[in-house]
Formats: sequence, structure tokens, C-alpha cells
Amino acid sequence: MTTEHLNGVVAPLLTPFDDAGQPHAERFVAHAQRLLTDGCTALAPFGTTGEATSLGMQERRSLLDALVDGGIAPAQLLPGTGSCSLADCVQLTRQAVEHGCAGVLLLPPFYYKGISDEGIFRFVAEVVEQVGDERLRVYLYHIPPQAVIGYSVELVGRLRDAYPQTVVGLKDSSGDWQNTAAVIQAFPGFATFSGSEISLLANLRAGGAGCITATANVNAGPLRELFDNWQNDAADEMQAAITARRELIQSKPMIPMLKHIVARHTGDPGWLRVRPPLLELAAEDAQTVLTSLAA
Amino acid sequence: MTTEHLNGVVAPLLTPFDDAGQPHAERFVAHAQRLLTDGCTALAPFGTTGEATSLGMQERRSLLDALVDGGIAPAQLLPGTGSCSLADCVQLTRQAVEHGCAGVLLLPPFYYKGISDEGIFRFVAEVVEQVGDERLRVYLYHIPPQAVIGYSVELVGRLRDAYPQTVVGLKDSSGDWQNTAAVIQAFPGFATFSGSEISLLANLRAGGAGCITATANVNAGPLRELFDNWQNDAADEMQAAITARRELIQSKPMIPMLKHIVARHTGDPGWLRVRPPLLELAAEDAQTVLTSLAA
Repeated sequence: MTTEHLNGVVAPLLTPFDDAGQPHAERFVAHAQRLLTDGCTALAPFGTTGEATSLGMQERRSLLDALVDGGIAPAQLLPGTGSCSLADCVQLTRQAVEHGCAGVLLLPPFYYKGISDEGIFRFVAEVVEQVGDERLRVYLYHIPPQAVIGYSVELVGRLRDAYPQTVVGLKDSSGDWQNTAAVIQAFPGFATFSGSEISLLANLRAGGAGCITATANVNAGPLRELFDNWQNDAADEMQAAITARRELIQSKPMIPMLKHIVARHTGDPGWLRVRPPLLELAAEDAQTVLTSLAA
Repeated sequence: MTTEHLNGVVAPLLTPFDDAGQPHAERFVAHAQRLLTDGCTALAPFGTTGEATSLGMQERRSLLDALVDGGIAPAQLLPGTGSCSLADCVQLTRQAVEHGCAGVLLLPPFYYKGISDEGIFRFVAEVVEQVGDERLRVYLYHIPPQAVIGYSVELVGRLRDAYPQTVVGLKDSSGDWQNTAAVIQAFPGFATFSGSEISLLANLRAGGAGCITATANVNAGPLRELFDNWQNDAADEMQAAITARRELIQSKPMIPMLKHIVARHTGDPGWLRVRPPLLELAAEDAQTVLTSLAA
């Protein structure tokens, strides 16, 4: 494992809301602390799981401040700073760098479709140049199921060649293990994370960095155990149990289902709220999964 | 024509940038004034053509202030205030209402895919409730080629039923005339705009409100003439000429091509700049269209 990059099990933090639908910083910080105790090696606030694109600029800035003020080590933080807007992305990225965060997770600009690799390259280049800080570390966030626009393997190579000290990793949420494997193979030393723990063992065996996965919000311990013991004989068995749990959870809409699990775990029903356009999951729809997990 | 809604020929304003890639307010206001002189009945800053999603929150707010300060009547302004973020969308919408704008053009929250009509309904409902101002007029912005997420005819009906004084119109950039016709037929009195002037005459004959079209940035006069004379015998001929010009322009990437035309028209090459992820169009690629338009 290199010490220059993040690796291990990273949780894209769920974002809790209060009765009025506003982000609830206290619940957020407590959840972050719990996940580090549970075994996460780092935390990625403001990802897809965190409903980041549903948050306002000021809300994102305030919540990141709250994490740092709440005692989370910036070296364990990988905030999502992506935005369709170059100006807003630069502002969020600069804040993360000023806090000393380990890096930022960067969505491509996702409004326009049919965008060329050259257009995405220029967007990332502008972010890097405008932030203009050698402490910046960028992890590309490849998630075509939501963003549609993505980082091709060729584009990853171009960005890495242009900014070798800055563009240091990628989260692959394509759902296509072949793509993850191709990135790992093409770029030794690059921190390539799987976007689901279903390929965690495969990722580590291939030389990847680990996983940044939604379910680390509720299953950090076993994921960390596999990460620490992936070369052991029991690794395949551990992976099988992890995969089974993941498949159970993702049988329901992921984000509201995870919030049900956290609400159950913390005894705090305030966790159930999601922000539009997402919808809450009715208690009866979550119940079968909750019962199976308890068993 | 009703006086309660906007109608006619609305230009989604192009956004000019300076040498440093920052929005250029002076060029923007001058362009807006020119288009009203040329015949536009209203202006829609911050649409897809205006690279709105590539602009920052503060940039959008400042540019709207500049238009109003520059003497553009708010009653002729229909700013795009859409954002994936509920908080940012509310903030931009509130600013538009406070300026006395005729309405706002509202993208659905476009990050998450596979979102239900109920989720989009709640997003729009939250915007309306949180802005909480009876002056607010919402025009739904249906553009599935970019946003992927869209407003189904059924959802339009639900929103109109829930907020009859507020949700008053729609821009249909689906590229599917059958969809536009279905909305016009389903909701008499609703201001339904075509997203392209190719269907302007059909729109008006069916009872629609007109068009909000990118090419109104460079062809406002003939569009307005058709709008004013659509019941004349010469209307089909006028439409044919308009359609031919549109097809010529859209043979190239639309936004950079339009900027070439404005640069040529104003003699100001500063107009050529676009913001990433869009790319400029090389002069030689624009030349054939410029030559044909001049002929």
C-alpha cells in the first residue's frame, strides 16, 4: 500500500435532514465519527449517496466545516466537490484544500450530454489550474449510471499525464468490473476504488485501492476486515458474506434503505428523511431487509 | 393571446465570457437590448443555450442583476433558475421574483436518473412553497436530451392542478412535436412553447404560446414576423425559410456556432468563447454557415 494515496474502505456519508428538510449537522458529524470507529479508513461526504447534488452551495460548505470542527481529521476526508458549474466546483474544491482534506472526489460536468473527452479534460484542467494549490489531490468520480458523462480510460490517462501529482485516483461506479480492472492495469500506482464492495476482493487482488461504497454507511466493520485480511485463506468466504449483504440491501432503493438501517441502529427516526427528488421508503417496504439483517 | 402569460418569440440568451473565462456582463446586457430591438418578446437568460449550468450561483445572480440594472424590463425576463439542488434553486427563484421577473424557467432536478414523477412533483412543490410568493410564475423546462429526467404530460397536469396560479407554462425541448401537441391539447390556457422554431407555426395553429429557441439569438426578426402574421397566407412560406435557416445553423454544434454568428454581427471576437465542457468551434468549421447566412 502506498502512503501517498487514500486506500481501504471509504464511506460516502449519508446526509441527514431535520424536520424542516435542512441538513442536520449534528447527526452528520456523529455518523462520521461512528463510521471511523466502525472501521472506515476515510469518509467521502457529498457523494451520490450523500444527496450532494441536492444540497446547496452554502449547505455543502457548512457541512464540511462542521465535520472538521467536529474533530474529523481532514486527512481522512475526501469530499465530493463536483458540480456542472466550473465556478462552484472551484469554490468547493478550494475550501477542501484549505481544510487540508486528503483529496476531492470529482464528478465530470454532467448537464450537457454528448460531451467530448477534450471538453471534460478542459473542465478538470480549469479546476486544477484555478485552485492552483499543490496540495490538491483529485480522485475522478466515474458514475455513468447517474452522470451519463464519464471518464474514459483514455481520458484518465491524459489527465494523469497532465497532472501526475494531482490526479491520483478514481472511483469507478460504472458497475462494470472490466472497466475497473482496465484502469487498475493501465495505471499502476493510481488509486482505483471500486464503487461497490461486490468487487472489493477482486479490486485488491488486481492491485486496486479498495472501495468507496454506499453500504459502508452500515457495514463498515466486515468491509474493513476483508480489506485487512484479503490475502488470507478466508477472504473468498468473507467476500461472499459481504456480497450477500450488499445484494439484500440493494434490493430496495439504496439511499432511503440505508437511512432506515441507520435510523434503526441509532434509534433516531429523524434519519429517515431524504430530499426531493428522492422519496422516503415506507416502513413496511424496509422491514423485510431490516429483519433479514438482524437475523 | 392572453396577457397573463408570456408568449411570442423568447431568446434564451447566450452568455459571453471575457479573456479570463469570466462572464462578461457588458456584452450580455448589450446583447439582451439588441434582441428586444430585433423583435424578441421576452428573454430567457440561463437556459441550456446560455451555458447556465456551467455558471456559478454568484455568477448567475450577478448577471440577472446586471440585466435589470441595465434597463431590461423584468416583465420581459424569464430566467432559468433550475438546479439539482433544491436550496440553490429556491435562492435563484426568489431573486427572480424579487426582481419582478415574468416567471422562471425550471429544469427538473437532473442528477439522479430513474426518478419518479412523485419525486419531481415534490421538488417543484418545495420550490413553490419555499419561495412562498404569489407573484411567482413557473414555466416547466422539459429537455430530456440533456436533463434525461423530464416532465411527463401527466406530471404537468398534476403540477398545474396543484398550483394553478403558479405553474403556468412549459418549454418543450424534447424535439418531439407530438409531445408538444399533446401538452397544448391537454391544457388549454397553459403557455406551451416549442423549444425550436421549426414547429413555431404548428405551435401557434394548435394554440401554443410561441417558441423559446436558441436561434432567436441570431434570427429574432423573421421569427417575430411569423409570430405576428401566422394567420396570413404567407405563413407557410415564412416557416419554410425559417426552418431552412435553422437547419443550416444546427448543422454545427449549436452554442459555439451561434457565438460565431454574434461575433460576426457585432464585430467582437470576444463572443467566441465558451466555458468547459463545451468547446469553441474553429473558424474554418463555422465559415460555411457564416457564408451561407450572409448570402
